[in-house]
Amino acid sequence: MSHQLTPEEQSPNGVNFLPGLALDFVVFGFHQNQLKILLLEYRNTGLFALPGGFIRQDENLNDAARRVLAERTGLIDIYLEQFYIFGDLARHDAVPLRAIMEAKGVIPTDDHWLLRRFVSVGYYALVDFTKAVPIPDLLSDTCDWYELSSLPQLMLDHQAIVQKALETLQADLDRKLIGFNRWAAPLLSETFTMADLQSLYETILGQKLRRSSFQRKILSLNILERLDKKYSGGAHRAPYLYRFTSETNL
Amino acid sequence: MSHQLTPEEQSPNGVNFLPGLALDFVVFGFHQNQLKILLLEYRNTGLFALPGGFIRQDENLNDAARRVLAERTGLIDIYLEQFYIFGDLARHDAVPLRAIMEAKGVIPTDDHWLLRRFVSVGYYALVDFTKAVPIPDLLSDTCDWYELSSLPQLMLDHQAIVQKALETLQADLDRKLIGFNRWAAPLLSETFTMADLQSLYETILGQKLRRSSFQRKILSLNILERLDKKYSGGAHRAPYLYRFTSETNL
Repeated sequence: MSHQLTPEEQSPNGVNFLPGLALDFVVFGFHQNQLKILLLEYRNTGLFALPGGFIRQDENLNDAARRVLAERTGLIDIYLEQFYIFGDLARHDAVPLRAIMEAKGVIPTDDHWLLRRFVSVGYYALVDFTKAVPIPDLLSDTCDWYELSSLPQLMLDHQAIVQKALETLQADLDRKLIGFNRWAAPLLSETFTMADLQSLYETILGQKLRRSSFQRKILSLNILERLDKKYSGGAHRAPYLYRFTSETNL
Repeated sequence: MSHQLTPEEQSPNGVNFLPGLALDFVVFGFHQNQLKILLLEYRNTGLFALPGGFIRQDENLNDAARRVLAERTGLIDIYLEQFYIFGDLARHDAVPLRAIMEAKGVIPTDDHWLLRRFVSVGYYALVDFTKAVPIPDLLSDTCDWYELSSLPQLMLDHQAIVQKALETLQADLDRKLIGFNRWAAPLLSETFTMADLQSLYETILGQKLRRSSFQRKILSLNILERLDKKYSGGAHRAPYLYRFTSETNL
């Protein structure tokens, strides 16, 4: 589960990896009206970054994504989705990469493969940050959750990658309901109230929604099954509980 | 506008291009209930393929996409959107690439860069195929529109790329309405009937929709402005005309 600069990564030609192609992960963490993002801090550099890494020559791209996320954060069995590939020339900056290597005692040659231009495939995920406990790898001092509204300064174009991921997540909210069991069920109890679901939406969208129109919209998707009212010790207005209908019924 | 294997592409190390990274384009053409796809046939090979190409070392990824599409098909000013990056090991097959080069009189070495594994960035576009007239490049015998329902056999994993693009287009139908002026306005007249818009949806989704629920759904998006009824020589039930509200009003 731990990651360090392996001998292959330290070697100046990076022969076992796909050249010029990287992976970056925006892992959103949701819990009770809070939206956070998983960041790591490279050891002895003060550089904050998204978890990321490289693809082996003998590895499928999406397999590499699962492997790298596990190595760098300890998180496994996370549903990852590609959202964009970042390929502007302007994102190329060898300075932080050199700093990370030097902090590990590696002095790279000027043509070291890690100092060249990289195109990066962005993946995002959405988890419950009280259940997904990250473990920093050997390259990192920390690997932790940060409030979306108060992120530290990030290296390279990682701030723009976060922004693009957030826009995708927001736009995907309804679309993703089609596969909600896989996507968002881990974020809610097996049964939940309409208010619980509205809170998930509001937190991701960063805005309040009208209760009546939210309920009408969600119910029109035909993905919810209404159960008994929530037991709350005799309240007259106990809310109904819902659960997602199984995917095969959609 | 024409593309051939340039001296740089023919050189065995491909030094001016990003190694191992390609572009493939699924250009959907819509007109009057028909959905087509733009394919080219590599000269003297019988190989049908999506238009595609490579990224220069000194070029932004999305700029490369516009350049390559123009070079290979003659189409310019097309709104392109990334939809997926294809990176499975199984997509690697040197045989058709070798055939394309040999048909051009180039005998590649076994370690020629074009014969190695490529990860490919998929872009899609949606145009009116009566207005977008493709021009084959020097590598291709033809560059033409093919009915989605009767495509020829495609090289590599291009059939799977088409399928993924179609799924994305279908899922994006509503989402994209937010920027509809840019995205789909070229597919409709400036003013159109509800039936015209429903036809666009039905053709892309490949299924009939109920008229009343389609109209209710579209109107609830608040993106249409209703104009006078369509003049049709005194018919009692002339349909209303609509146009999209300008993007700034959304």
